[in-house]
Amino acid sequence: MLDVKDIYKDYEKYLDKDITVQGWIRSHRKQKEFGFIDFNDGTYLKNLQVVYDNTLSNFDEVSKMRLGSAISITGKLIKSEGTQDFELKASNVKLEGDSKDDYPLQSKGRPTREFLREIAYLRPRTNLFNAVFRVRSIAAYAIHKYFQDRGYVYFHAPIITSSDCEGAGEMFQVTTLDLDRVAKSGKVDYSKDFFNKRASLTVSGQLQAETFAMAYKKTYTFGPTFRAENSNTKYHASEFWMIEPEIAFCDLEMDMDIMEDMLKYVVKYVLDNAKEEMELFDKFVEKGLIEKLTKLINSKFTRIDHEDVITILKKADVKWEFEPEYGEDIAKEHEKYITEYFKGPVFIKNWPKDIKAFYMKQNDDGKTVAAADLEVPGAGELMGGSQREDDYDKLVKRMDELKMDKSSMDWYLNLRKYGGCTHSGFGMGFERLLIYLTGVDNIRDVIPYYRTPGNCDY
Amino acid sequence: MLDVKDIYKDYEKYLDKDITVQGWIRSHRKQKEFGFIDFNDGTYLKNLQVVYDNTLSNFDEVSKMRLGSAISITGKLIKSEGTQDFELKASNVKLEGDSKDDYPLQSKGRPTREFLREIAYLRPRTNLFNAVFRVRSIAAYAIHKYFQDRGYVYFHAPIITSSDCEGAGEMFQVTTLDLDRVAKSGKVDYSKDFFNKRASLTVSGQLQAETFAMAYKKTYTFGPTFRAENSNTKYHASEFWMIEPEIAFCDLEMDMDIMEDMLKYVVKYVLDNAKEEMELFDKFVEKGLIEKLTKLINSKFTRIDHEDVITILKKADVKWEFEPEYGEDIAKEHEKYITEYFKGPVFIKNWPKDIKAFYMKQNDDGKTVAAADLEVPGAGELMGGSQREDDYDKLVKRMDELKMDKSSMDWYLNLRKYGGCTHSGFGMGFERLLIYLTGVDNIRDVIPYYRTPGNCDY
Repeated sequence: MLDVKDIYKDYEKYLDKDITVQGWIRSHRKQKEFGFIDFNDGTYLKNLQVVYDNTLSNFDEVSKMRLGSAISITGKLIKSEGTQDFELKASNVKLEGDSKDDYPLQSKGRPTREFLREIAYLRPRTNLFNAVFRVRSIAAYAIHKYFQDRGYVYFHAPIITSSDCEGAGEMFQVTTLDLDRVAKSGKVDYSKDFFNKRASLTVSGQLQAETFAMAYKKTYTFGPTFRAENSNTKYHASEFWMIEPEIAFCDLEMDMDIMEDMLKYVVKYVLDNAKEEMELFDKFVEKGLIEKLTKLINSKFTRIDHEDVITILKKADVKWEFEPEYGEDIAKEHEKYITEYFKGPVFIKNWPKDIKAFYMKQNDDGKTVAAADLEVPGAGELMGGSQREDDYDKLVKRMDELKMDKSSMDWYLNLRKYGGCTHSGFGMGFERLLIYLTGVDNIRDVIPYYRTPGNCDY
Repeated sequence: MLDVKDIYKDYEKYLDKDITVQGWIRSHRKQKEFGFIDFNDGTYLKNLQVVYDNTLSNFDEVSKMRLGSAISITGKLIKSEGTQDFELKASNVKLEGDSKDDYPLQSKGRPTREFLREIAYLRPRTNLFNAVFRVRSIAAYAIHKYFQDRGYVYFHAPIITSSDCEGAGEMFQVTTLDLDRVAKSGKVDYSKDFFNKRASLTVSGQLQAETFAMAYKKTYTFGPTFRAENSNTKYHASEFWMIEPEIAFCDLEMDMDIMEDMLKYVVKYVLDNAKEEMELFDKFVEKGLIEKLTKLINSKFTRIDHEDVITILKKADVKWEFEPEYGEDIAKEHEKYITEYFKGPVFIKNWPKDIKAFYMKQNDDGKTVAAADLEVPGAGELMGGSQREDDYDKLVKRMDELKMDKSSMDWYLNLRKYGGCTHSGFGMGFERLLIYLTGVDNIRDVIPYYRTPGNCDY
C-alpha cells in the first residue's frame, strides 16, 4: 500500500511509473475536458495533485465526484508544469465511498475552530487539525524515545485509585452502584460497590511511580489523569495526559537538568520530524513559532530562587494587577515578566512550602521546599518538579499538619523506611506542551475528544 | 550517573578505573575481615558483585548494612576470580538510606507470588517482577515503534465516554454527584452531574479510532480500558491496556497480515532487547518459552474459516466438555486443539455474525462477518480483528436488530456517509500479550497495581 508520504519523501523513485494510491478528495476543479483533484490520503500534510482528462472511460462519473469522497487512483507520476514538482496523471479513478452535498467541510472559506469543535470527528481532515494531531502523535513518541533510550522503565500508573495524591483534589468518583437504587434505598453502601470501597480517577501517578523509582532507579509514566474541576478556561480539561518521571539518587539540580534536556530533545525531535506541520503553525497560527522553539533548544535555562524572583518583581517598574509577595504564589503576569527579564526559560526553585504539595523535600530553612517550576516565554508554566521528602519523620509530620489520612498511605511512607534515598521527579501536562509546540492555544483543540464541564461527546 | 547496565554492556571500558554507583543491597555476606554485597541499581537484571575489606574506614558500619538499604559505592572495577567476569572492589561505601529488619524481602527462601501481591509496591525489587515490568516497558515501546515507523498516528481515545462500544458492556460509571446527597434526596439528577449526563469509563477506543483512520489512513490507540465484570479469573482485570489499530483501505486479509507482522515484530524486539529477562522466564517460569516465541516468529500463521474449524473439531477423536457446533463460539479446549492441529498460530475467520459485534462487516452469505481471531499455541486468543461494516444501511439495520440506541452514534454512522471505505482494525489486550511473552500466567502479576473485584489498593 503506497502512501502519499512515500512519494513526497523520494518522488524521483516513482517518476514515470504507474502507481496506485487510495485516499480522499480534498478539492476538485472541473473543466469541460479535464479536471484537477487535490488528493490526500492522510499520511502526509500536503495534497497530491491529480490530473485527469476525458480519455478516462468514466470521465463523466469522475468529474462529478464530490468533496470528501474516498477514491482509488491509478496513474503515472509525472513532472508537473505547475508550481509542484510532480503530479499524478490518472488512468483509472474508482469511487470507494461517496460523500454527500451536506458534507460539513466544504472548500469555500476557512471554518472557525469553534465550528470544528462541534464536528470534532471530522476536524482531523482539515489541514490545521491534521497537523495538530499528527504532532501530538510524534511528540508522544519523542517522549517515549527519550526515556527508553536512557534506560527509564515505562510505568503504567493505575487509573482507578483509592488514594489521593495532591490532598484535596477534585476527583471523579468511579462506581458500579446503581444510582437509582441508591436514591431509592436512601443510603450508600460501599460494601456493595465494585471495589468494596470508594474509588476515584487518578489525578497523578507520581506516588505510585515513586515505588518504581525505588526499584528501577529511573521510571516514567505517560497516561491519562483527571480533574473534576469546574473550570471553563482555555487551559483546563477534565481529562488530560501527563508525563511523570521519577528518578532515584537524583537531587533538585539533577532533576532540572533532566527537565531541560528532555524538553529540548522533544522540541528538536518535533521540529525535525514534523517539518511541514510546524511550518503550517508558524505561518497560520503563531508567527515566529519555529524561531521561538529553535531559541529554546539553544538557550541555557536560568535557575533562580522564588525569593529572588519576588525581589525582582517588587523592584520592577510595573503596575501589577496582583502585588508580588514573599511566601506567596506568582501570577501569570509575573511569569511573563520573569521570562522576558531573563530573555528565556526560567526555573523558579525553592518555593514557599505552604503553597506546595506535602511530598516535597523540606529545605533546611524550614520555610521552603526543593521544588522547581519551569516557566517558558509565551506559555508560562510548562513543568513542575521537586525533590521528594525522603525523611520518614518529616513526611509524617507534614501529613499530620495537613490533616491527611495516612491509613491508606503506609506503602508510600514505607518507601522511606526500606532503602529510601534522595529522589526527585517532575510532571508535564502533555496538552500544555502541545499548546506550546503548536501555538494552538485552546486545550480543546489539542485533544481529539475533549472533556470539560458539560462536554462529553463521542 | 553510571548505570550498572552500562558496566554490563561494556565492562572492559571501566576495568581498573574508579567508578561510583548508587543502588540497593540485594544480599550481603559478611566475613570477619571482608564482605560481599550483591548490588542492584534497577537498571539491569543482574547484580553487580561488590567486595570490601577492613581497609575501609567505616568497615564496621558497612558490615552491618542491611538488606534493602540504599548505598553509594566508589571503587575500582576489577577482574573477578569467581564465576563473574568482574567485580567492584569498594574503596568507599556510603549509606544513603537504611532499611529495617522487618524488610519483607529477605533473601532466604523464594516468596510466593500471592505473598508478593500483598506487597505489590515492593515486588519490582524481586528478580521475577523486575523482569516482568521491564518487559512490559520494552514491549510497550516496541508497539509504539512498530506503528510509528510505519506512519501510523497514535490516537488518544477518550477515557470518559458517553458512548458504549460493544453494546451492553458492563461499564464503570463516572460521576461527581454526591452519593450521600443522592441517597438523601431520593432522586438522581444528571443535569447536576459534571457532564450534565451519564458518563462511563471506556471499554474500547475503536469506534473513535475509526474517525482517525478516515483522516490519517493508519492509526492506533494504546491506552487503558475498563470492564466492570465480576470475574475472578487469572485472565480478567477491571483495568487493562489495549492496543487498537484501525486502517483505511484495508480488508480482512490485509488486517491479518498486519496482525501477524506486528506480533512477530514485537516478540522479536522483546527477545532481542530483554535477553536476560527472557532467559529468566525460560528458566524459572515457563520452560521452552524462548523456543516457543522463536517458533512463532518463524512460522506462517494458518488462516481458516470458523465453519471449517468446527468441521475439524467435530471429526476429532476427542471427548469434548463443550460440543463444537456450527454457528456457535468455540471453547478454550477447542482453541487448544486447533493450534495443536495446525502446529502453530491460527487465524479463525468469518465468524457467525450473531456471536460477534454489531460493527463487523457482514459477508454476502448473510450469516457470517469478516472477523478474525488469532489463536496461539499455549495461550489461546491473543487478538481479535475485523473488517468494519462500511455500508450505512446495513449498519443501521444491524443496530436496529440489536435494539441499540443510535442517537449518540450519528458521528459513527456518518463516517459511512462522508467518504467511507473498506476499513479494518483489531484489538490486542496488552496484558494478554505479556502473559504470552513472559509465561507469568496471572494477569495480577503483569500489571503493576491490578484492579479486580474488591481490589483497589494503591
